[in-house]
Amino acid sequence: MTDRMANVGLAATLEGRPREATENLAPILELVAADMAGVNRIILDKAVSDVELIPELAHHLIDSGGKRLRPMLTIAAAKLCNYAGEGHIRLAAAVEFMHTATLLHDDVVDESDVRRGKKAARILWGNQASVLVGDFLLGQAFRMMVDVGSLPALKILSNAAAVIAEGEVMQLAAAQNMATSEEDYLTIIDAKTAALFASAAEVGAAIADRPEAEQLALRTYGRSLGVAFQLVDDALDYGGDSSKLGKSVGDDFREGKITLPVILAYRRGSAEDKAFWVRTLTEGGIGDGDLEHAIGLIRRHKAIEATAERARHYGNVAREALGLFKDSPAKKAMLDVVGFCISRAH
Amino acid sequence: MTDRMANVGLAATLEGRPREATENLAPILELVAADMAGVNRIILDKAVSDVELIPELAHHLIDSGGKRLRPMLTIAAAKLCNYAGEGHIRLAAAVEFMHTATLLHDDVVDESDVRRGKKAARILWGNQASVLVGDFLLGQAFRMMVDVGSLPALKILSNAAAVIAEGEVMQLAAAQNMATSEEDYLTIIDAKTAALFASAAEVGAAIADRPEAEQLALRTYGRSLGVAFQLVDDALDYGGDSSKLGKSVGDDFREGKITLPVILAYRRGSAEDKAFWVRTLTEGGIGDGDLEHAIGLIRRHKAIEATAERARHYGNVAREALGLFKDSPAKKAMLDVVGFCISRAH
Repeated sequence: MTDRMANVGLAATLEGRPREATENLAPILELVAADMAGVNRIILDKAVSDVELIPELAHHLIDSGGKRLRPMLTIAAAKLCNYAGEGHIRLAAAVEFMHTATLLHDDVVDESDVRRGKKAARILWGNQASVLVGDFLLGQAFRMMVDVGSLPALKILSNAAAVIAEGEVMQLAAAQNMATSEEDYLTIIDAKTAALFASAAEVGAAIADRPEAEQLALRTYGRSLGVAFQLVDDALDYGGDSSKLGKSVGDDFREGKITLPVILAYRRGSAEDKAFWVRTLTEGGIGDGDLEHAIGLIRRHKAIEATAERARHYGNVAREALGLFKDSPAKKAMLDVVGFCISRAH
Repeated sequence: MTDRMANVGLAATLEGRPREATENLAPILELVAADMAGVNRIILDKAVSDVELIPELAHHLIDSGGKRLRPMLTIAAAKLCNYAGEGHIRLAAAVEFMHTATLLHDDVVDESDVRRGKKAARILWGNQASVLVGDFLLGQAFRMMVDVGSLPALKILSNAAAVIAEGEVMQLAAAQNMATSEEDYLTIIDAKTAALFASAAEVGAAIADRPEAEQLALRTYGRSLGVAFQLVDDALDYGGDSSKLGKSVGDDFREGKITLPVILAYRRGSAEDKAFWVRTLTEGGIGDGDLEHAIGLIRRHKAIEATAERARHYGNVAREALGLFKDSPAKKAMLDVVGFCISRAH
């Protein structure tokens, strides 16, 4: 079976066809287009430094075309809340910088070679520069937030910064440990991924000075969406098309990351299957054909379908959370993003 | 010549005897004692996390007894400005967390084995955990600042975070480059070290809501003090006693760092001397006896004396900056800290 076939199969398993992913992203792309142009200008402006290496390395990642999903959530949430100011643009750029800083540090921690389809920055400029430029971008993110001057927004985003790091440490501690449970895994992705989605959406309501119930609703929306997003990401690592993923299929496997597809395949597997997972993931004894065997076990135990089922559950929670808001183009766009996160082939 | 003799020689070169360093620190230690007890409580409180590895690693560094000079500056500056609130304590703790996060990332970048006389955290827990726990501490620092709720203080400290990272990247880019000039070096230490000293002192005036001239005076004081501190630190690396330094003599040499003692010895040296520096620092060809030879060249060209002279210059600028303030125990303590930074054997 080719990668492409695996990918089509996975997308079908998740929700509808790959085309659906693009269709689901269209409404938010249209909604935020004008403001995102402002966000992108600020991102370019704030990645500047007299220290040459900084913009060079930062641009490598910035220009490689991430989806900018997190800042889009901030813009969309601000629109949903009828925010009339300009602060959401700067906050959205800060959110994207926080995310970029995390990616740079992640690649160092995971020893990744590829990011967004290009060589990882750490391969081109070294781990040291990646750590320090990540620190710089995080500092710039805080500067931008402070410029906006909203203490509630600062509180939300500074909390996220600490929680994301906690999640990453948890993931590091859980690596290569087959005792990691589904609950442990959820705690990890809630911190390392969902916390930033939650905060990105919540700050949109916070700067619009909306009642606490609406802030909380957007937080729940972002958080559930983030969990669904990460679940699908982890499923794609065992069945996606590496040219579309922007990373290699099997990265998590090679890094000994214990994600939900593995947790389920392990717990549903025979003694022989369990021995395979222990050998490859905890003892680092990965050889020729092991990734294919791992993918085979995951398919046989329907671990992708089960992971997709969890993603749909969190997607539903995200959709319900928007029930507090009356219908609007912003609401429709944010509901459709849920479909995107679940059905995306990439 | 033993290390101890070199150390006594250096201290004499710098300013007075080693004893003087301790005497100069006594007034500020007394001035800030009560508030620093509060700072230390917050530091312990905020290094806590459900993720076991975080407090374990953080405490390794926190408990190893740094001087906590930077938070002491915040407390002393707040007292100098007759600040009556409690916010300075939390800001001081945030300053120390920013510093601790920097140390963790520095050790990864420099591949250091020793920090404050103990094995570096990266040796015990790995580079990955050091990067991530550094990120966590930086996140916690921002949380604490946000809790204080002073936007001017947040502006000062978030600027520092970005500038420190810029300085570290500059240092990385200048490493192993003998073309680094005295001016380049000053630009680097101004960013990587002096920016946090400057901000630590300035926030004391900022939360006390003092006029801009006083904030600027404290900023100048901290900045000049920080430059003097780093100059002495870099001199000690070629002549200190490693048991007192808490790091190994020759660390900078082994890491190919181009500090002022080297810049001066290189520029004052013969063609043969220059070839030695190029071989050892830029080509990484360090062998037996090379550190001793480097120390010999630095002594022969009086590079330590010249570095100490620069430190005295910046110390004088720091002292002058306090001229705006009328005499008080806080002012005396802050003036004496200048003497400490210049005369410290450690």
